[in-house]
Amino acid sequence: MLPLLTRIDHIGVACRDLDAAIARYEATFGLQVVSREVHEEQGVREAMLAVGADLRPGYVQLLEPLGPDTPVGRFLARRGEGLHHVGYRVEDIGQALGAIGGTGVRLLDERPRHGSMGASIAFLHPADMGGVLTELVQAAGPA
Amino acid sequence: MLPLLTRIDHIGVACRDLDAAIARYEATFGLQVVSREVHEEQGVREAMLAVGADLRPGYVQLLEPLGPDTPVGRFLARRGEGLHHVGYRVEDIGQALGAIGGTGVRLLDERPRHGSMGASIAFLHPADMGGVLTELVQAAGPA
Repeated sequence: MLPLLTRIDHIGVACRDLDAAIARYEATFGLQVVSREVHEEQGVREAMLAVGADLRPGYVQLLEPLGPDTPVGRFLARRGEGLHHVGYRVEDIGQALGAIGGTGVRLLDERPRHGSMGASIAFLHPADMGGVLTELVQAAGPA
Repeated sequence: MLPLLTRIDHIGVACRDLDAAIARYEATFGLQVVSREVHEEQGVREAMLAVGADLRPGYVQLLEPLGPDTPVGRFLARRGEGLHHVGYRVEDIGQALGAIGGTGVRLLDERPRHGSMGASIAFLHPADMGGVLTELVQAAGPA
């Protein structure tokens, strides 16, 4: 069987103040922001910081909700700041969703949608993943 | 400034039943267990599953507590199963702890201790990392 997941793409971190969170990761680890985006439909303002200097970095994705009645806003109200999800890189997200859906894991996204930095993404149901909100990521560029 | 973190080493996932969690990751993603260990002093039974087929995999670390009065046992009682921590790879953990401690972030481990697969590890205080329990990992082999 070919590996479905090619690597850990990113960890998603819920925060109340994006600029303060960026400053923390810059000051503590020297991480650099490589992308800042607002995704109105997901209700988040976010920044991607690259971990590792090679050609295949992973990312810390810092997520600030656009309001309390958003997925990340509700997460913060319930659990406070902290780890929100993990994203794994796949080569072909359509194929991956078919394979994973076939194992009985429920898909929060039946079809891929737009993610950070031009990626195609989809989430799996955390209740079927041991409480872990799990994202699949097909990058815009080479896998 | 040289990059302090060379990559995302692993995500740590708290689970109630290690064998069931392993079976889930095998069935869903085809991940393989590369190491199983018991760390009495940390109060956990754990498995490392490799993500990615290349020479530099990341890992999903599944953690089952040895009892309720352990860090992971208390985590499960408070928050249920799910993401527990993130581990970043560093080249020199002593140097990294010195640099990070110098920024004012509190260290849960002033000195490195033994981690999975022969690594040297140390944790940073989650209250200083936006609620994220953060681990540094110097691998036993090449970084």
